[in-house]
Amino acid sequence: MKHRILAFGKPALGYAKEGIALYEKRLKPYAPTKIEYLRDCPEPKRTIRHLEASKGTLRIVLDERGESPTSAQFAKRLEKWQLNAHREITYLIGAADGHTDALRVEADMIWALSPLTLQHELALVVLLEQLYRAHTILRGEPYHR
Amino acid sequence: MKHRILAFGKPALGYAKEGIALYEKRLKPYAPTKIEYLRDCPEPKRTIRHLEASKGTLRIVLDERGESPTSAQFAKRLEKWQLNAHREITYLIGAADGHTDALRVEADMIWALSPLTLQHELALVVLLEQLYRAHTILRGEPYHR
Repeated sequence: MKHRILAFGKPALGYAKEGIALYEKRLKPYAPTKIEYLRDCPEPKRTIRHLEASKGTLRIVLDERGESPTSAQFAKRLEKWQLNAHREITYLIGAADGHTDALRVEADMIWALSPLTLQHELALVVLLEQLYRAHTILRGEPYHR
Repeated sequence: MKHRILAFGKPALGYAKEGIALYEKRLKPYAPTKIEYLRDCPEPKRTIRHLEASKGTLRIVLDERGESPTSAQFAKRLEKWQLNAHREITYLIGAADGHTDALRVEADMIWALSPLTLQHELALVVLLEQLYRAHTILRGEPYHR
């Protein structure tokens, strides 16, 4: 199983870059994880790009107006997708003003990491930490702090 | 109004240290924010230390089994506390295994930043980002990305 994360614009905050690199590295032994930074563009182009880039994969849209599983619940869902032979999951991170309805209806899951509005680079760190956490949960391994 | 954050153990992850420093600096013009790292110790000593260190202040306990306001709702609450002349808010961050009931009953608010289990240094970054965000919301200022 592979994770592919699509975000608009490269992270500018030093701490976020560092956090992203850390969890990317930690995820390596569990599942290859690739982050692709798309060049930002106005709607509806942004939605079209997101849809094209995630075609044929299981599509998770990160959006405040989504469901909010616990870490254990998300891990369970990941396991189910693995068993159902989903080989690639694409995570779509919006720009600051969120996602369009046209994108939301095409999602296999809409995931609100928190009811809080998180700076989107920070959200990227939280997402990666959760993917790493989910894999350690599924392997029954201790979480490396 | 002052924010005081009490955590056990200094952050070890580089990115978290950097993120904490960034939002501490950004908070400066809005409200002095101080983070105190207590030496970790076993329960019930940990609870006693947390209670003593936060005596006489408005006490917010960060805990997964708490309420989850949005950023705007939290900002509103902060405003109310300011109007009610609360001069100091203390935020209590637990160690990895959470807080005791003895501490929870003494809380003015129990705050779950997310239904996800966040690595506790990452939770500290999220908390600081939210305090910064709340102050910009209350001042009607644009959020500095």
